[in-house]
Amino acid sequence: MNKILYCCVISLLGSAFAKAQSPQYSKIDSTMLRSIYNYNLTESDSYEWLDYLSNNIGGRLSGSIQAERAVDYTENEIKKFADRTELQSVMVPKWSRGTPEFAYIQLNDLSTINVNICALGGSIPTRQEGLKAPVIEVKSLEELSSLGREQIEGKIVFYNRPMDPKKIQTFEAYGGCVDQRYSGAEEAGKYGAVAVIVRSMNLRLDDYPHTGFMSYGDLPVENFIPAAAISTNDAEKLSAYLALDKELKFYLKQDCTVWGDVESFNVIGEIKGTRYPDEYIIVGGHLDSWDLGDGSHDDGAGVVQSMQVLKTLKELNYKPQRTIMVVLFMNEENGLKGAREYAKQAELKNEKHIFALESDAGGFSPRGFSFDTTTKQMKVIESWKPLFKPYLIHFFELGGSGADVGPLKGANTVLAGLRPDSQRYFDFHHAANDTFDAVNKRELELGAATMTSLVYLFDKYGIEN
Amino acid sequence: MNKILYCCVISLLGSAFAKAQSPQYSKIDSTMLRSIYNYNLTESDSYEWLDYLSNNIGGRLSGSIQAERAVDYTENEIKKFADRTELQSVMVPKWSRGTPEFAYIQLNDLSTINVNICALGGSIPTRQEGLKAPVIEVKSLEELSSLGREQIEGKIVFYNRPMDPKKIQTFEAYGGCVDQRYSGAEEAGKYGAVAVIVRSMNLRLDDYPHTGFMSYGDLPVENFIPAAAISTNDAEKLSAYLALDKELKFYLKQDCTVWGDVESFNVIGEIKGTRYPDEYIIVGGHLDSWDLGDGSHDDGAGVVQSMQVLKTLKELNYKPQRTIMVVLFMNEENGLKGAREYAKQAELKNEKHIFALESDAGGFSPRGFSFDTTTKQMKVIESWKPLFKPYLIHFFELGGSGADVGPLKGANTVLAGLRPDSQRYFDFHHAANDTFDAVNKRELELGAATMTSLVYLFDKYGIEN
Repeated sequence: MNKILYCCVISLLGSAFAKAQSPQYSKIDSTMLRSIYNYNLTESDSYEWLDYLSNNIGGRLSGSIQAERAVDYTENEIKKFADRTELQSVMVPKWSRGTPEFAYIQLNDLSTINVNICALGGSIPTRQEGLKAPVIEVKSLEELSSLGREQIEGKIVFYNRPMDPKKIQTFEAYGGCVDQRYSGAEEAGKYGAVAVIVRSMNLRLDDYPHTGFMSYGDLPVENFIPAAAISTNDAEKLSAYLALDKELKFYLKQDCTVWGDVESFNVIGEIKGTRYPDEYIIVGGHLDSWDLGDGSHDDGAGVVQSMQVLKTLKELNYKPQRTIMVVLFMNEENGLKGAREYAKQAELKNEKHIFALESDAGGFSPRGFSFDTTTKQMKVIESWKPLFKPYLIHFFELGGSGADVGPLKGANTVLAGLRPDSQRYFDFHHAANDTFDAVNKRELELGAATMTSLVYLFDKYGIEN
Repeated sequence: MNKILYCCVISLLGSAFAKAQSPQYSKIDSTMLRSIYNYNLTESDSYEWLDYLSNNIGGRLSGSIQAERAVDYTENEIKKFADRTELQSVMVPKWSRGTPEFAYIQLNDLSTINVNICALGGSIPTRQEGLKAPVIEVKSLEELSSLGREQIEGKIVFYNRPMDPKKIQTFEAYGGCVDQRYSGAEEAGKYGAVAVIVRSMNLRLDDYPHTGFMSYGDLPVENFIPAAAISTNDAEKLSAYLALDKELKFYLKQDCTVWGDVESFNVIGEIKGTRYPDEYIIVGGHLDSWDLGDGSHDDGAGVVQSMQVLKTLKELNYKPQRTIMVVLFMNEENGLKGAREYAKQAELKNEKHIFALESDAGGFSPRGFSFDTTTKQMKVIESWKPLFKPYLIHFFELGGSGADVGPLKGANTVLAGLRPDSQRYFDFHHAANDTFDAVNKRELELGAATMTSLVYLFDKYGIEN
């Protein structure tokens, strides 16, 4: 009996403890969330803003005239509802694609097959006449290294490890492959390769080559080699032809230019907090994009959703306790200079950022958020989950936030990233088909509503210290 | 102290009871689910089957040659992996669209604006020369009834209540509108209207008219009037023109034919149970579709996912305890004759169906299932939820299953419907853009894997009696 009594007391204490972690929200909050979703699904501007960014401005590579137009456009739109806007100056790298890339496979009988490629961002060009060389296919940087200079020198290295279709979260499949794109040229350059072509980071088999950032790392400039992505269909083809004809040659011509750094801007807008104006909540996406498509999913969606968070709160006549800011970061794609500058200035000004939320995973149906925070704070966040159930938001997990809010990481800042359904994201990522028509209006709006709801809760309840 | 002791004992009893509801699964099950998902994401046939059904056969309206080709094709495919197949004869209604519909708005100044319409399934044609009449716009059957014969007679009734964008589950928005399509002609016919045009059941603004089933109910044949759907963009236009010009006329011409019933078939395939062969688990979708598109989401996706459930279990060398059947129902869209025949035969043969799962909500990213069952059984089902968490399946809710499994409802049958993300479903539903390219391979495969996993669990654990 004593033992049972002991268990009971423990159990009661357990209940009491559980009580301390019980839901931190009220009926008012569920009404507010309903208003936020209703507003977004019926009156929001996010889809129109995205239409303009995608169809009127287009791809917005850092340092391009399109990026500067996007700065102007978004600042002007934000001025319509924010208490204050600011353009935060930042130096960003500038790289341009030049005339369209061209490539073909030349078989032993001299017949040729054109293939779809694109230069990787940051790559040097080929000589004007292009280059032609035999190809060696590898599945990894490790395989490359095991082959050594003897088998690599004078050849084009073809990295052909596909994204793993068994990963449910496609970003994990991306993470398992992207070393080929980012470091492929640096590693192949060490062994005297003349160029690299990388299978596109795409789970589908289609004809779109997907660009993305690459780096030569510490490679001496004289060892830099051109780097291109090849569509998944053509990667399959090239691999099949290589199995039949190891002597085939690959012709590659690209015309890109690496320029010096140029000035650009983070676009910032704020609604002043009424009670704790010195506590900042920021919500953002990145204004730059790759140049092949319109950057509608990556990250036009995140940009307009973040703008919509502030506009929604304003239109619903909500007076935030804390200062809420939208930050449209410049240069996420090829440098992260905007994010670093923002974090640096925040530190210099000793600003207290309590919560930073990023949307940079596409404008698809929202599923929830991932958080970078303490277990204690996570318990509070989890207690809000029931509020989101009517909106089918179920994913509240520890583990990562986003590239642009990452530099704000600190003991008292909760970082988070919106997690939309990821199944179709890499169909469009960094490719010519990342266009406005690939974004569904409702899915975009539901994402903005979900972000607004979380921002509202952080504003109302603050964070645990 | 006594009181506390009392509480403790109650609490302990509570725990013991909770224990009885604790997870009913083992490590083996999570391994099995992983194998099911891996197989579907790497080796399944579902996408190729859908390609054939959509692109080689096309829209499969009951009684059409395409529907008969679909019966042949799926039976032949199922034969490759099932222990037994069967074609279950059923008489189905036959209706055909004929030559393309044509409609325009004629303003007072006799200028005309062409609009996109399609006949509703089951509608009578117009006379060959078409009909032209003034239009009266209403938002509901109630509004129609309040207007009465004086304002309706001789006119075309234009039903223009949009789907409610505030509904998170789009099927609820559909449910709140579809009375206009189903009963609009019957009701307007009572007041002497000459035709009805119904705003398409679509949350987007676009140019596609969406067909669907309508009924004249108990209306005398001489009062039947033609019924058509108009695209959402053109519904907006027509409403705007009516506001400016109440005297405008609408011209409508359609050429559809209502034929007599014809014979068709449910396609059935089974894998025999090793331990309880007389306990049936069925999984199905409907083989017929509307004729405007390819019926890829509605319900080609459900058809191939259901076939894939059996094929996956077979390929993984799983020996089911119960008999598992795939049932491809004929005539869900305009009669439900296949589902009724299947249920009738099951009852006549006194077959014990323990679980019936339907997929008829599109080939989108799966979110979970809705169930029609007892609270007791639901507790067991909920205990399986953690098994599905790695696959982001979170929605296990009481409330509805599906039209085709509905007639099997009985005390000892658990009914369920797959619930994919519904945001984009009505962009395609019953329209010309419901085509193969609108279905994402991974999303389709994840749906099939999720269905297979649930079928596996019901096979292994049976149901509570």
